[in-house]
Amino acid sequence: MCHSGVRFLSHLGEVPLGSRLGKRGMMNEVGPSVDGVESEKKLSKKELNKLAKQQKKMEKKAENAVALVKENEKEEDEDISKGCYGAYGIIQSIELRKLDFIDVKDVFVNLEGHEIWIRGRLHTSRIKGKTCFIIIRQRMHSIQGMLSVGKEISKQMLKFVGNISKESIIDVRGVVKKVEQEITSCTQKKVEVHITQLFVVSTAEPRLPLQIEDAARIKEEGKSTEDSSLSVVNLDTRLDNRVLDLRTQTSHAIFSIQGGVCELFRNTLKKRGFMEIHTPKIISAASEGGANVFEVSYFKRSAYLAQSPQLYKQMAIAADFDKVFTIGAVFRAEDSNTHRHLTEFVGLDIEMAFKFHYHEVLETIGAVLIDIFKDLQAKFKHEIEIVDKQYPCEPFEFVEPALILRYPDAVKLLRENGVEIGDEDDLSTPVEKFLGRLVKEKYRTDFYILDRYPLAIRPFYTMPDANDPKYSNSYDMFMRAEKAEHQCTQLGQLKSVENCCSLYELFIYGTFAILGEEILSGAQRIHDASLLTERAKHHQIDLEKIRAYIDSFKFGCPPHAGGGIGLERVTMLFLGLGNVRLASLFPRDPRRLTP
Amino acid sequence: MCHSGVRFLSHLGEVPLGSRLGKRGMMNEVGPSVDGVESEKKLSKKELNKLAKQQKKMEKKAENAVALVKENEKEEDEDISKGCYGAYGIIQSIELRKLDFIDVKDVFVNLEGHEIWIRGRLHTSRIKGKTCFIIIRQRMHSIQGMLSVGKEISKQMLKFVGNISKESIIDVRGVVKKVEQEITSCTQKKVEVHITQLFVVSTAEPRLPLQIEDAARIKEEGKSTEDSSLSVVNLDTRLDNRVLDLRTQTSHAIFSIQGGVCELFRNTLKKRGFMEIHTPKIISAASEGGANVFEVSYFKRSAYLAQSPQLYKQMAIAADFDKVFTIGAVFRAEDSNTHRHLTEFVGLDIEMAFKFHYHEVLETIGAVLIDIFKDLQAKFKHEIEIVDKQYPCEPFEFVEPALILRYPDAVKLLRENGVEIGDEDDLSTPVEKFLGRLVKEKYRTDFYILDRYPLAIRPFYTMPDANDPKYSNSYDMFMRAEKAEHQCTQLGQLKSVENCCSLYELFIYGTFAILGEEILSGAQRIHDASLLTERAKHHQIDLEKIRAYIDSFKFGCPPHAGGGIGLERVTMLFLGLGNVRLASLFPRDPRRLTP
Repeated sequence: MCHSGVRFLSHLGEVPLGSRLGKRGMMNEVGPSVDGVESEKKLSKKELNKLAKQQKKMEKKAENAVALVKENEKEEDEDISKGCYGAYGIIQSIELRKLDFIDVKDVFVNLEGHEIWIRGRLHTSRIKGKTCFIIIRQRMHSIQGMLSVGKEISKQMLKFVGNISKESIIDVRGVVKKVEQEITSCTQKKVEVHITQLFVVSTAEPRLPLQIEDAARIKEEGKSTEDSSLSVVNLDTRLDNRVLDLRTQTSHAIFSIQGGVCELFRNTLKKRGFMEIHTPKIISAASEGGANVFEVSYFKRSAYLAQSPQLYKQMAIAADFDKVFTIGAVFRAEDSNTHRHLTEFVGLDIEMAFKFHYHEVLETIGAVLIDIFKDLQAKFKHEIEIVDKQYPCEPFEFVEPALILRYPDAVKLLRENGVEIGDEDDLSTPVEKFLGRLVKEKYRTDFYILDRYPLAIRPFYTMPDANDPKYSNSYDMFMRAEKAEHQCTQLGQLKSVENCCSLYELFIYGTFAILGEEILSGAQRIHDASLLTERAKHHQIDLEKIRAYIDSFKFGCPPHAGGGIGLERVTMLFLGLGNVRLASLFPRDPRRLTP
Repeated sequence: MCHSGVRFLSHLGEVPLGSRLGKRGMMNEVGPSVDGVESEKKLSKKELNKLAKQQKKMEKKAENAVALVKENEKEEDEDISKGCYGAYGIIQSIELRKLDFIDVKDVFVNLEGHEIWIRGRLHTSRIKGKTCFIIIRQRMHSIQGMLSVGKEISKQMLKFVGNISKESIIDVRGVVKKVEQEITSCTQKKVEVHITQLFVVSTAEPRLPLQIEDAARIKEEGKSTEDSSLSVVNLDTRLDNRVLDLRTQTSHAIFSIQGGVCELFRNTLKKRGFMEIHTPKIISAASEGGANVFEVSYFKRSAYLAQSPQLYKQMAIAADFDKVFTIGAVFRAEDSNTHRHLTEFVGLDIEMAFKFHYHEVLETIGAVLIDIFKDLQAKFKHEIEIVDKQYPCEPFEFVEPALILRYPDAVKLLRENGVEIGDEDDLSTPVEKFLGRLVKEKYRTDFYILDRYPLAIRPFYTMPDANDPKYSNSYDMFMRAEKAEHQCTQLGQLKSVENCCSLYELFIYGTFAILGEEILSGAQRIHDASLLTERAKHHQIDLEKIRAYIDSFKFGCPPHAGGGIGLERVTMLFLGLGNVRLASLFPRDPRRLTP
């Protein structure tokens, strides 16, 4: 019998499940209410019968559970651990209790001998004779617990613990003990918990659609061996069961870092006098030509989902908000099933009035991104290390201030390395990546800005270059983080270097795939209504559809520039994840709408 | 002649507009590009002709401008201010220049005698004989500038300045001077700027669709007088011309405070260990019955816009994220044209795992909101004062910790005050407001929490009360900020108190309209898959549609609760704006999709 006096905790046999479930069964008088506004409604006979049946079923289930416990009790009449283990049942907030729970991450040797409470996941359990070892997982941390049949622990309790399904949530009470040999399988390597009490908070179904360890495995690990026990879960299965997949240490580290990107983005902009705004996602017209835009039924008419907050950021500038940023969903109805496209992602957008030159803005954005990179490396060292275990990747490298390369110089550099490209040609995706490689070699940076794009390949609202009308006051920013070799192995595209005649060819054949990707596209925008009209006409855009936008500039507007980055893409590239879906909590692509 | 040597600044006559515009006209070789990916295309003869015509038109316009300046010059051959005034033309980032601009808000008497540069809006200008007074506006601040014909300022310059249209953006150089009498019409009351140079950065069209002063006027001000010069702009006109309407000091103050709400919300949650997440807005099924949901064409199928991030916040909890918050767009396809409904708004959402009782969460949310209110009053004192000038309102009052009222007690209180209401009835909007009034009288608080709602009126995922199945572990939070009298005047519904027999009746007839509104709805959610299934069936919800949601709870989930507030509604109620549209940068309602 357990004497710790945890009055509030009920042994499974002590609280008759039947009565608890019966209570639920009694809620027959409650009418259907879908959105919380429907009023109560009396139940029909049929419904009452159905509910009675439900109740009977639940009662039966409860009886079985009670019987199971009784059976356990039969095995040995006196259970010395009675009251020290069991299941709480559904926690329905019956009492407000205080227990001093401690986070797993805070359990160190200095707590040696202390009694603690932990709530966490049962990551694994194994019984070895009269001893049971369990690993308790809590987000990015884990600790070993053990219990041995003896003066305090009954056989029944050991059996109960051994039968708890993995991924169940448990409350554990125990004493912290130093261990002689480091526990390599846990993050808390120098201590373990000698368990005195254990209660199930929430039970997981015994058959999991995927194992957490498998979802956390490095791809190569599974491939490099014939041993089928090292199974690797494919991405679709992981995303189908995202709630389980998100429980890996890697996922927790990724989203912790992603939260950091947002926070650092905001902090560095606030310091620079930027103000946060929110722009509408439902818009009346597909402003930029109508391609790749989702249509929404809006009462009796049609509307669209904004592809970017740009037009609204600009209107905020025309309304004197001076320096603004916004973080929010953007939508692209692009039927691209690639590693880097999502149909919905989180845009981190900046717009800023400047005095005389858009480089005032370009340099600000460059500095903002470098601030973010620096702070991520300083403040999320541990998380980056965790991600690196599953997705090995070279550390992100950059120069300060950011390298600004002019488009014509980039074209020259590409030509010198065997790429045929016209002065006003856009960069194709492979060329863009190759340029990233050349820049990395020449300037030792994984982040750079490409400035003064040809006007012909930019949107209508881009300010032309006053000195050379072939060009424009626009820029893209690039990041790369992929370790080429690693990617190639993943893609299975490795070619021998000898068969290729140029670095570019080598690149094109996949050896340096997924290097250098655009993360931001920006420009000085045209802030003059008549020049904007002229350029829109030139691009054959229906002026009627962008009336409100053009009108915004009729009543005086400061010169301004801006840009936006995709949160998921930046996270992916910074960490070298290789697939943007891994950086989205619940990714959306042309084929995926659930979970 | 001006000797200040601002080489970079061009007098209108010095940079022939023709040449500048000609440059734009020369961009004929640029092909149409709508989204920045189309490649260059040769122009047809027709297009070339069109462009040639355009160019001619622009050149003609430029010639006229030059002629105008020449005419001015004719009046007096020698212009002593030549080079000290004019228009920059469209700033196209030709040179990166540094000028020490100063913010209007920082111009105090300590700068007496200093020469400064200011860029701002020309708010007003008036010529009085040989002197011109202007007001330069910069967001929430304004300063007076003056120039007199004399040794440094020519007649031509004075005329030029007098002719600049209101709302144009100007650069002003001048000397700070103390004034003898306070300038009541400006925020910088003790100083003015004696202008030596003035250049137009961006010209506003002379006819504005609304006057900034009119949009900033208190409604009563216009009504209380027969003087038609004090016109009040109606809300639709203001929203139609939102870019102008947003330029008022009031608007800047409102959105500064709103940015503050977001920042304070995040900061106080971060301090409490919450993590920021982002949830998808496009979802596969209308989970809560399908009412009030926008449909989206998603490639070849249909999808919906999320009415709240709740299901995804909960999945994050099931994935061990423990305490999360998210700020993002939420969508309601409700055809409600009221002062407090938007079809798209910004949701500030919280979800939190708890140990034993949902009050752990309820108290956290209460404390979070009180933190926000306190910090707003401390850090945005000035902004609140500005808003109060246009929307007079009693200061927001609250008790700490937040008042928690149980639903049955609220029903009792209502009955004592003449309201007929059943135990399990929902609160109608007028009753909800009336309750706010009663609470304010009894407890002196504009913020309170109503706890333990009847189960029948809450959504299917709400955890039933274990002790009384009529009730549930759910809560709403309420705010009020409206000064009753003020609102009534606005609504024109003031009735004499003598004609009403009860406080409630008095209330119903409009005397205390718009008092006490729900800002947050929350609950302990069911974290057990089988109970959730049972409750969903009871509510006749298609289980297939919420499969992914229910499945999330099959593999162990901690008990949890949460809630969400609407950013615009909280801003409106805190400031007493009386209409939620005023707290949305670009509001969306059933009738409004632009700008």
